[in-house]
Amino acid sequence: MAEVFTVGLIGCGVVGQGVARLIASEAEEIARKTGVKLELARVADKDPSQPRKAGVPDDRVTTDAAELIADPSLQAIVELVGGTGIAREFVLQAFKAGKDVVTANKALLAKHGREIYKTARDNGRCIAFEASCGGGIPLILPLRTGLVANRVTALYGILNGTCNYILSEMDQKGKSYAVALKEAQEAGYAELDPTLDVSGGDTAHKLAVLASLAFGADVDLAKLHVEGIDQLDAADLAAGRELGYVCKLLGIAQNGEDGLSLRVHPSFVHDRHPLAGTSGSFNAISVYGNWVGHTLYYGRGAGSKPTASAVVADLVDITRLHTADPDHRVPHLAFQPDALAATPILPMDEVVTAYYLRLRVADQTGVLSRITTILAEHDISIDAVLQRESAHGEGQTDLIILTHDTREGRMNQAIATMQALPTVLAPIVRIRKEELN
Amino acid sequence: MAEVFTVGLIGCGVVGQGVARLIASEAEEIARKTGVKLELARVADKDPSQPRKAGVPDDRVTTDAAELIADPSLQAIVELVGGTGIAREFVLQAFKAGKDVVTANKALLAKHGREIYKTARDNGRCIAFEASCGGGIPLILPLRTGLVANRVTALYGILNGTCNYILSEMDQKGKSYAVALKEAQEAGYAELDPTLDVSGGDTAHKLAVLASLAFGADVDLAKLHVEGIDQLDAADLAAGRELGYVCKLLGIAQNGEDGLSLRVHPSFVHDRHPLAGTSGSFNAISVYGNWVGHTLYYGRGAGSKPTASAVVADLVDITRLHTADPDHRVPHLAFQPDALAATPILPMDEVVTAYYLRLRVADQTGVLSRITTILAEHDISIDAVLQRESAHGEGQTDLIILTHDTREGRMNQAIATMQALPTVLAPIVRIRKEELN
Repeated sequence: MAEVFTVGLIGCGVVGQGVARLIASEAEEIARKTGVKLELARVADKDPSQPRKAGVPDDRVTTDAAELIADPSLQAIVELVGGTGIAREFVLQAFKAGKDVVTANKALLAKHGREIYKTARDNGRCIAFEASCGGGIPLILPLRTGLVANRVTALYGILNGTCNYILSEMDQKGKSYAVALKEAQEAGYAELDPTLDVSGGDTAHKLAVLASLAFGADVDLAKLHVEGIDQLDAADLAAGRELGYVCKLLGIAQNGEDGLSLRVHPSFVHDRHPLAGTSGSFNAISVYGNWVGHTLYYGRGAGSKPTASAVVADLVDITRLHTADPDHRVPHLAFQPDALAATPILPMDEVVTAYYLRLRVADQTGVLSRITTILAEHDISIDAVLQRESAHGEGQTDLIILTHDTREGRMNQAIATMQALPTVLAPIVRIRKEELN
Repeated sequence: MAEVFTVGLIGCGVVGQGVARLIASEAEEIARKTGVKLELARVADKDPSQPRKAGVPDDRVTTDAAELIADPSLQAIVELVGGTGIAREFVLQAFKAGKDVVTANKALLAKHGREIYKTARDNGRCIAFEASCGGGIPLILPLRTGLVANRVTALYGILNGTCNYILSEMDQKGKSYAVALKEAQEAGYAELDPTLDVSGGDTAHKLAVLASLAFGADVDLAKLHVEGIDQLDAADLAAGRELGYVCKLLGIAQNGEDGLSLRVHPSFVHDRHPLAGTSGSFNAISVYGNWVGHTLYYGRGAGSKPTASAVVADLVDITRLHTADPDHRVPHLAFQPDALAATPILPMDEVVTAYYLRLRVADQTGVLSRITTILAEHDISIDAVLQRESAHGEGQTDLIILTHDTREGRMNQAIATMQALPTVLAPIVRIRKEELN
């Protein structure tokens, strides 16, 4: 006879309906695995027709979330309201009411993580958020437990399916950014207002959550360097391909001797690296540990069913915590609360990475020599040079340069110097390139 | 102040030395994460110079494993002896002495799993084996917990680094099997006697362990269909490439309406599928769940450091179990003991898959028509046909055919009929092809 674990769900949109359907159809099978039966006892949504779509009986539905938080018969609350306003209130109140919380809300954790983790701790409660990054991919899980023996040295994530879909269309079919975005909107892969995705903001939220876990550090979202994909030209993706690289929007966290490098920007990765093979709306994340080496986790980064899979895995995890000695629970951020480190985050100028550069130059003798001299003067070493006819008329040519690793500050200086040359005829295109192993 | 958890290690070869080194250098950091400090209190090896290599102090070393099993101060035993003889004795005795066990021994679990799981259960102990499949990849972990909301519908694994290294060399550099094997032996990627690897036997052990977990079923190793890579011709790998497919040795488990399909054999996968990008000695496994869809886990499948990472993750997991209510522990096989299912395993004739066929035929009118008619008579539908000059002289030609999914039994009959034609001049080559999503 399985023990029953009662759950309240606040927010019954697309993902919430997935959770309701999953619990309805799989609770018996999950009890067969775990010995505990999940019961979705109550659901709150402003719009009571939403839970009805997922078959939740009317007598379990309310429009008042406060009822769920106050209900002593509920053991855990699933927060799927989204946003950082009322959702924050619900989560904090749930802890104070003695309830554990499961959420998919990366913006909330990225912006108010410190307050949320502390309130959970102060009330002896747990916050679980597998669904906040990488949708259905069990990704928080290895960072919390499977890689516990490792110091994470670096982490590279394709964490936004909208951007990856658009980049895949640009890369594989030569579409422009504008066309690929429009088609993604029509196909339902991009929002009507796609800003949060294409600006890199959503990826930054997820990176902040993952870096907190990987390094046991409180990450200040404001310190992340964030660039989106909206300035990318399909011609550069094609040139990168010719050179053996694929362009991805990456969330990058590297733990170096001087501090953490945390950044979101388009980046070329070698076409043999498994991140390069992550196409369309899929997500993938490479995690490098000092013992395990390179590991990668791949799957659907969004969608009702995959996200519900992650939410329910968290609920099951919490049922296990309910009988454990709190000292031995997996702590927030995967580290003991008194052991969180204050690791400095590198300013972008000090970040080390490689570069793809495209310069539109006058097609005349000495130009290449002048440019390579400038790079040499800045101690920047060249990996490959490709010269091609420019699409922009006679007397011009496109110079494509791959560099080895260098400091961003040094590259900025070199670019400024090259840009000032009269023979450089257009703004220099610069895309970073990660030397993944 | 971290609590201390005392561990005894039996077998201090390459992996055991990795475990000893990892605990020595990372125990403090792991305590910072978990609140528990691992202590490698005693090490047993027939050859006491082995633990010395990893810096284990002599006063902790013995040549008599029985001493560790009898030592009441040890809380868990790590078994890294290997094989299915004395290792089985050690594991069973450790349970009876009240100790939890961590092992990397897939052969032991595949052959004696039922007895080992039962003895652990009868003694209220735990067996953990993350290191037994996929080396350092946290792979058992999602099957046990992260995907707990899902019914696993299928699982496809590149589980043997030796085979994958050889196949990658054949595929990417056109080497013959014999040359690639010889070079792999020289590079240390293959044993002097490579039989267990290249025959598919090692992959079968791992598949049996993974399928047990994924489906909550006791898997009888003898019922698996197993083929190795030693009969593969590089010419077929190249022809597959031309058609957009890459050949991998896969461990395959599919959960169909009629039963489980469990098999190990070389198989073509589409070159856009992330399994196709898993090159060299890396491992990867695709797990399909009914809610999460496709997920994939990638990393180093062997080696001292990655395997030690998995062993220590298991030890940390066990420290958590030591304070938990036993009813809520993660049970063996990820299912409650009274809930294990007796799922039938499909005979190979009833397995459904697609095929690559290569027929050396007489270069004369009507041959292609005769062969396609035979396939049609067996209800086998053709996906693509490629006709090329044979390397085997004039008057002969190579016919390469890709089929859609069909039953293996039906394909066997069609092949027998085609083989009997006087115009078919050599044994027909048949490689299966998986229609992965």
